[in-house]
Amino acid sequence: MTLFNLLDILGIISFAISGSLVAMRKKFDPFGVYIIAFATSVGGGTLRDVLIGAQPVFWMKNTSVIFFITGSYVFAIFFRKFLKYLSKSLFLFDTIGLGLYTIMGTEIGLKANFHPIIIVSIATMTASFGGVIRDLLCNEVPVIFRKEIYAMASVFGSLAFLILHFFNFNESVLYISTSLIVITIRLVAVKFHLSIPTFYIKKK
Amino acid sequence: MTLFNLLDILGIISFAISGSLVAMRKKFDPFGVYIIAFATSVGGGTLRDVLIGAQPVFWMKNTSVIFFITGSYVFAIFFRKFLKYLSKSLFLFDTIGLGLYTIMGTEIGLKANFHPIIIVSIATMTASFGGVIRDLLCNEVPVIFRKEIYAMASVFGSLAFLILHFFNFNESVLYISTSLIVITIRLVAVKFHLSIPTFYIKKK
Amino acid sequence: MTLFNLLDILGIISFAISGSLVAMRKKFDPFGVYIIAFATSVGGGTLRDVLIGAQPVFWMKNTSVIFFITGSYVFAIFFRKFLKYLSKSLFLFDTIGLGLYTIMGTEIGLKANFHPIIIVSIATMTASFGGVIRDLLCNEVPVIFRKEIYAMASVFGSLAFLILHFFNFNESVLYISTSLIVITIRLVAVKFHLSIPTFYIKKK
Repeated sequence: MTLFNLLDILGIISFAISGSLVAMRKKFDPFGVYIIAFATSVGGGTLRDVLIGAQPVFWMKNTSVIFFITGSYVFAIFFRKFLKYLSKSLFLFDTIGLGLYTIMGTEIGLKANFHPIIIVSIATMTASFGGVIRDLLCNEVPVIFRKEIYAMASVFGSLAFLILHFFNFNESVLYISTSLIVITIRLVAVKFHLSIPTFYIKKK
Repeated sequence: MTLFNLLDILGIISFAISGSLVAMRKKFDPFGVYIIAFATSVGGGTLRDVLIGAQPVFWMKNTSVIFFITGSYVFAIFFRKFLKYLSKSLFLFDTIGLGLYTIMGTEIGLKANFHPIIIVSIATMTASFGGVIRDLLCNEVPVIFRKEIYAMASVFGSLAFLILHFFNFNESVLYISTSLIVITIRLVAVKFHLSIPTFYIKKK
Repeated sequence: MTLFNLLDILGIISFAISGSLVAMRKKFDPFGVYIIAFATSVGGGTLRDVLIGAQPVFWMKNTSVIFFITGSYVFAIFFRKFLKYLSKSLFLFDTIGLGLYTIMGTEIGLKANFHPIIIVSIATMTASFGGVIRDLLCNEVPVIFRKEIYAMASVFGSLAFLILHFFNFNESVLYISTSLIVITIRLVAVKFHLSIPTFYIKKK
């Protein structure tokens, strides 16, 4: 198993747990919780595969993804009362997932020879659209459109990856730098309640 | 016309009528009602085709689907007052659609040689995601995430299909058994108000 | 640059501005506003490309689309107070976008040799589903399912295009007629508050 596979699995688990917890808070039944765990975990990558035309989508070709999601889901159900007091660990899970998926999305975009802007879009989509799909399925305004710096961490992480890749740094450097950038931006943003200044239009 | 075609058409009609009625209850205009009828009827199969990469999606290659949906839609508009008192028949329509689409999804997954877990996922998606898309377009929490046993009927129907198929039973046996299983599970669940036990997290 | 390219760009700009304004009214942060601008502008065409199987989707192959959206987005943020008093110009932008995307969708459907009914569906989807995706991401019932004649203008515009094309009229005639039909239907509908008569079911 390569480093990449390990990161991939950690990303899947992180998002599946965070999705399960959101759905249990919404009082969905176990089937609904499973769908939300699944959608949060693979939603971004599925959208990416569909938009670039890489079908069947990745989790149809690699069933281990389904086993990891199912395991995380069962774990989240059993330890839900315990996890409830662990809002910090959950935040950490989600942040790790964000970093790992940013790396994966950037790699896939690079391999397919897209324009750098498209690669960053693909990476950001892979990393943050699982959460958007989760929120849509829960009938809520996607949280990343309103609060704090989330997807922007992914944008900067992916940019850093592309720049370091351009200068031929090796895989480990790319992976560690990108993860560190995404996780640092996210931690700093939440710690200091940073958010992007909002420009809005008042309703009459 | 084969048995399979006939079942297919019945599924399309069932879901198109049930979609039209939901949209009329939401006071959508006739265009909106049509889109909801369409999305309910072909939404699951469209998502399936997009995820497995079988494009153009099925209803673009077979325009008779559009004629059946349009006919069902016109029928539902004309007989809306009558159908209102027929909640039992509507439930039946929806249940028949669920069974038929489960069969179709399983067949398509088998032909494409997917892993059994993926086949069951594809079948369940084909059968129940038209309703999810309908609910999302109506801005409601998808009903199948919260109430009663619905998609689970589809999961068991598809599993039964795969097991019987493995033992080389013929098409009619497969179709009839799967339909019976899906419809029975659904009828029993609704009759006795069965639902999956829910594990949820209280909000503070 | 051909007439078609110019129209295309005007359509992208129109929808990106209208999307930005809706998102700013919902108090989304700048990242959220950008995603809504993007989704409104390319959502319909992206859905079209995914359903017909023309991936990578159009804006991944032509990055100029991204520059035009980004420019329109920045413009909309800077001039938001000014644009607020321009509800008429905004309506006009949206209507122009509707006409132009109807033309583009019809052309793409024709080139792919689809059945006329499918071509009209593809054109209507290209033209009006950006707005549906915008409304879903904003957690609102899609406005085109409830109010006034919107998508129907696109249906008639696309039909006119197909009929004139059948009689071998040249491109300019096709473009101008379709635009005029879509824009006229939309203007007349809004001016005289025309809407399609609604058939609905009362809740008990």
